[in-house]
Amino acid sequence: MEKMDNQLSDLVNKELKVDVAAPNKSPENDKAGNHSKRTENDKDGNHSKGSQNEKGGSQSKGKGKSGKFVLKTPKGTRDYGPMEMAYRREVFNVIYSVFHMHGAVQIETPVFELKDVLTGKYGEDSKLIYDLEDQGGEILSLRYDLTVPFARYVAMNKIDNIKRYHVARVYRRDSPAMTRGRYREFYQCDFDIAGQFDAMIPDAECVQLVHQVLSKLGLGEFTIKINHRKILDGVFGSCGVPSEKFRPICSAVDKLDKSPWEEVRKEMVDEKGLDEEVADKIGNYVKLSGREELLETLANDELLKSSPSAQAGFADLKLLFQYCKSLGCAEHLVFDMGLARGLDYYTGVIYEAVLTAGQNFGEEGPVGSVAGGGRYDGLVGMFDPKKKTVPCVGLSFGIERLFTIYEQKMRAESNKVRATQTEVFVVTACKGMVHERLKLLGLLHEAGIKAEGSYKNNPKILNQLQYAEDNKIPLVALIGESEVEAGVVKIRDTVTREETTIKREELVETVRQKLGGL
Amino acid sequence: MEKMDNQLSDLVNKELKVDVAAPNKSPENDKAGNHSKRTENDKDGNHSKGSQNEKGGSQSKGKGKSGKFVLKTPKGTRDYGPMEMAYRREVFNVIYSVFHMHGAVQIETPVFELKDVLTGKYGEDSKLIYDLEDQGGEILSLRYDLTVPFARYVAMNKIDNIKRYHVARVYRRDSPAMTRGRYREFYQCDFDIAGQFDAMIPDAECVQLVHQVLSKLGLGEFTIKINHRKILDGVFGSCGVPSEKFRPICSAVDKLDKSPWEEVRKEMVDEKGLDEEVADKIGNYVKLSGREELLETLANDELLKSSPSAQAGFADLKLLFQYCKSLGCAEHLVFDMGLARGLDYYTGVIYEAVLTAGQNFGEEGPVGSVAGGGRYDGLVGMFDPKKKTVPCVGLSFGIERLFTIYEQKMRAESNKVRATQTEVFVVTACKGMVHERLKLLGLLHEAGIKAEGSYKNNPKILNQLQYAEDNKIPLVALIGESEVEAGVVKIRDTVTREETTIKREELVETVRQKLGGL
Repeated sequence: MEKMDNQLSDLVNKELKVDVAAPNKSPENDKAGNHSKRTENDKDGNHSKGSQNEKGGSQSKGKGKSGKFVLKTPKGTRDYGPMEMAYRREVFNVIYSVFHMHGAVQIETPVFELKDVLTGKYGEDSKLIYDLEDQGGEILSLRYDLTVPFARYVAMNKIDNIKRYHVARVYRRDSPAMTRGRYREFYQCDFDIAGQFDAMIPDAECVQLVHQVLSKLGLGEFTIKINHRKILDGVFGSCGVPSEKFRPICSAVDKLDKSPWEEVRKEMVDEKGLDEEVADKIGNYVKLSGREELLETLANDELLKSSPSAQAGFADLKLLFQYCKSLGCAEHLVFDMGLARGLDYYTGVIYEAVLTAGQNFGEEGPVGSVAGGGRYDGLVGMFDPKKKTVPCVGLSFGIERLFTIYEQKMRAESNKVRATQTEVFVVTACKGMVHERLKLLGLLHEAGIKAEGSYKNNPKILNQLQYAEDNKIPLVALIGESEVEAGVVKIRDTVTREETTIKREELVETVRQKLGGL
Repeated sequence: MEKMDNQLSDLVNKELKVDVAAPNKSPENDKAGNHSKRTENDKDGNHSKGSQNEKGGSQSKGKGKSGKFVLKTPKGTRDYGPMEMAYRREVFNVIYSVFHMHGAVQIETPVFELKDVLTGKYGEDSKLIYDLEDQGGEILSLRYDLTVPFARYVAMNKIDNIKRYHVARVYRRDSPAMTRGRYREFYQCDFDIAGQFDAMIPDAECVQLVHQVLSKLGLGEFTIKINHRKILDGVFGSCGVPSEKFRPICSAVDKLDKSPWEEVRKEMVDEKGLDEEVADKIGNYVKLSGREELLETLANDELLKSSPSAQAGFADLKLLFQYCKSLGCAEHLVFDMGLARGLDYYTGVIYEAVLTAGQNFGEEGPVGSVAGGGRYDGLVGMFDPKKKTVPCVGLSFGIERLFTIYEQKMRAESNKVRATQTEVFVVTACKGMVHERLKLLGLLHEAGIKAEGSYKNNPKILNQLQYAEDNKIPLVALIGESEVEAGVVKIRDTVTREETTIKREELVETVRQKLGGL
């Protein structure tokens, strides 16, 4: 076998190169594609209009207006290619390791539920639920989140307490905003603790867990905002909101992270029929945020002093702060009176984690919330025939956003995440050696070594070496006729291009040593 | 702190015990439950009749006939509890490790596709596809397998070659047979190689991969049956089957693994209009099975000698046998002329792995096929506007069956698979120590050690120790007032009940050593 190092760089004909780039050309990176040109209001999902028929987008071919077949994924969904999946595996591994650190068990529930299970759990958002066609059986809907199926699971199996995680995709017929990582099909990554326990101990563990995951992922500064539904109810009550309007007003406050107070006030007054003075009073409170001192101040607030609801909330949050200090995760905590969380079912502490610096979706602005959750003590009882309830507290990671940020970070750092894990590429130097190649592959696999070879009978040697370089496979095991005759193998380091000739029976051990030293 | 070992076994009041048993009471183990009483022919899925309203089953409550709410999962689906998920993780880890050994990349596609994508791909089985309700957008269906979405992905992204795996659930409105592990929602675990390569090299890798996974899982003896669509077509042609009946007759042959020849013959003659003599001629061939010698014999068969299609198939299989020998995976190969595989899209080699001994579903009989696949060279072209095709070969593991067998095996061997991975349980010996407990937890977590503690302010010490024993948590870190004062921690081995007192700053190191030595 000759030296060929200098020729390698000139090589053009890469007959073996697996195209892992193409799958990464995902809709949101493809500005000429279908999805990114849709407006937020394009709710009809009609794929025969708009930019769908433009030529050049890899997603739209044939059909469309002209009635031909359109080759695309459904609106608001996308495929994930090899590199994206490699990044995802890394993020998931971090999160799973933290879940296991806390002794959580894993469960899985069906992707669809009886429609009745979901009915009445999501308020205004119920219109976003995907229904299955009635094909002559049960009436089914795709799950909207993992929390309601969890509550159904706990009630159905009469579980008194459980600490579980569940990672799966959920479905919402929302307006996709794919450039911001908002899809109709997306992963949720939930951790929940169900059971009758002492105040704030499980709640503090949830905060600690968010803290640990975000720290380990290393995505930069973050804040964990906390608030309490009882404090919000206390404020609403003390300001003069009638109790039947607590949830709608709460849902208006929830928009404070995206809209200025003036707009939120307008929604309260115009849409939800609140008196202007009441709205203004609320405004004085929900704009406040701070640390423990603010808790102390507000607990002694003239108006809130006489609200048992607010006082119960303050007591909980004080305890939460203390527990978080003991756990070593209080530094990022911020008490934010404007945090409301959209969902109806929360009954106690609520929290939300936001990345605070440098993490933007390009021109789309900051990432925003990457985790959120809270206490929901009534949900399991909604499924129990005797209304027996099991208190719950939990959280959900905005895993799609975390994926995006993580991938951006890794790419920015030129971090070498590989789509495959192949350790050795078996190369044959001359013709008629396919059986010898397969024997070597069988040998390496038998020893648990990750190895690949060409699918050609007589691949060109340069192409094989180039493939190993392109795919960052650290070692090449090379044989020609003379090597087979002499019972030896050449081991080549792909980076240094150093070659060593070893006996065939030393191959496995040598490969292990070399891989250990890399 | 006193000695309490003798008291431990008398302990009854387990206030902390997380109920991981309940979720395992899955439908197929619950003979009094809903699902197991249904007949195979109950296709309507109506949940208000049959055993649904029987009292006592944990799945059926309220509603049903009486119009109340039924607490259950949809027909043909189920939840998976903590122990089941722990077994699944182990099976998946084995399979993933083999996929990575072969340098496969991972992809993911949406759970639903445009209905058009699935149309015309599954023949008679198309009626089993779940459709989504038309909610004013695209017409969508749940995926039926992972192969058609893969072909769509390859065509849409204009990929020339890729070796990928995809593990996800698929959906079929079939008659569930849950005692046999047949569900309407179930995992598929696919590995496919797309690209224009030399004959039988990727095909042999697929066989090798099945061999490796089944060997590593250690589920006992298995056979990998192989056949070739061109051989079947050659047989059909030579026996006088008109070519338009090749696929229907093939689909009849496919039933040979479940039905006797007489029934298959009846289907050919009565349902599919074949002449009796033609059916009998076919019968002479499809009952044959053997090793390489049979290939040789049949290649020289008077009738098949003049069939180019059959001869091409024999040549492929001979080569496949040789490559498998070089790869070290030929020992389980059986050439089975009765293997036909149901799906229309296969065009070349087909294979199926069956467990052959001792693996039964109780009284339900043998497990049957646990993996299958083959070559499908035309599918990608069905999605390409210019009909440009990419040859593919692949396989799918019957992962639900593998889970069931693996779990049975582990339980039979009393193998201690745990639902959690907790390494240390932090125990406080007296009242008022919740903050000390949390500090120790924070310390252990910071060091990456998997640790849990009670959610009670003042849990009883015996209950805490019992919890550690019940959950097989190997170590306990115990502190009382005196330990905190002295800056020490007691480490207790849960199995031997040995205790050592160490300095607090030695905790992490000591725990690591002890865990390493277990």
